[in-house]
Amino acid sequence: MQGSQEVVVLRYGHRPGRDDRMTTHVGLTARALGADRVIFPDNATQGADTVADITDRFGGPFEIEQTDSQAAVVRNWAGPVVHLTMYGLPIDDVEGEIQAAVEADPLLVVVGGEKVPFDLYDHADWNVGVTNQPHSEVAGLAVFLDRFFEGRELDTEWVDAERTVIPKATGKKVVSG
Amino acid sequence: MQGSQEVVVLRYGHRPGRDDRMTTHVGLTARALGADRVIFPDNATQGADTVADITDRFGGPFEIEQTDSQAAVVRNWAGPVVHLTMYGLPIDDVEGEIQAAVEADPLLVVVGGEKVPFDLYDHADWNVGVTNQPHSEVAGLAVFLDRFFEGRELDTEWVDAERTVIPKATGKKVVSG
Repeated sequence: MQGSQEVVVLRYGHRPGRDDRMTTHVGLTARALGADRVIFPDNATQGADTVADITDRFGGPFEIEQTDSQAAVVRNWAGPVVHLTMYGLPIDDVEGEIQAAVEADPLLVVVGGEKVPFDLYDHADWNVGVTNQPHSEVAGLAVFLDRFFEGRELDTEWVDAERTVIPKATGKKVVSG
Repeated sequence: MQGSQEVVVLRYGHRPGRDDRMTTHVGLTARALGADRVIFPDNATQGADTVADITDRFGGPFEIEQTDSQAAVVRNWAGPVVHLTMYGLPIDDVEGEIQAAVEADPLLVVVGGEKVPFDLYDHADWNVGVTNQPHSEVAGLAVFLDRFFEGRELDTEWVDAERTVIPKATGKKVVSG
């Protein structure tokens, strides 16, 4: 988010077709809730295109990258790595430590698809559960980011937007620019 | 959530095939993050089956219903209705009012699919935006519930679970019961 260390979301694992919408929603949620960048696997082309298109229309700054080596991104990350997983430690117990660790270095938040390699659990500095219940990687990412940024992500000022939604009690209002 | 007024999530609109996973994730997120019940459209059979299966395995209480008239559920609801939409008022501005309104009556949280009828905006007591950016109905629901329950939903005690995940710093631990 503007004015703080970089926060990057890595979507780990993607099955074209089946995962297209989930991967897209991971990227759009990362953008809307304060991350600076999303990294998708090489094969998530449709998701990358959609997130780039939304960024063009609704503004940035937000970067979309693709990688052919998700494992290397995690291994070589120069800062703390959080892996969101239903098997991890309760977010209530670790969110303060994570916030403190990110004051100096950029944060990588890894969001798994159906299967992640076991050594991801070892490479992560924190395996974090947004509940220990099966639900949705998109929901877990959203709660994590809202808590990490303590709600400040909702005040983002979008730059270079072609269109802007004006909040309304009823109905829809969209203006250009 | 146990010990408070009922909170029910209505998934409004579902296209079989295309929306199966999103609808399932709406239901699983509702369950994991403190809602008491989800109402799916009649045609969301796969989502209903999956959420029921997860509830059998990981515990309740949580109810899954299907309806042939989503509009009537909204119209006849005996309590406040929140509609989550990127066109609505900022959640920061209305979450306190919504919490206060629910002290006496059950809350309906409507989560739209791609298209919702325009009069839903009129029937809702609050149209609420978790950002005014396009992202994910699952992410919006997750942030709304976490803020509505102020994090207490993470302390849910699950009943009649066949399996329970034990939080771990690294790796996976699941026990029976």
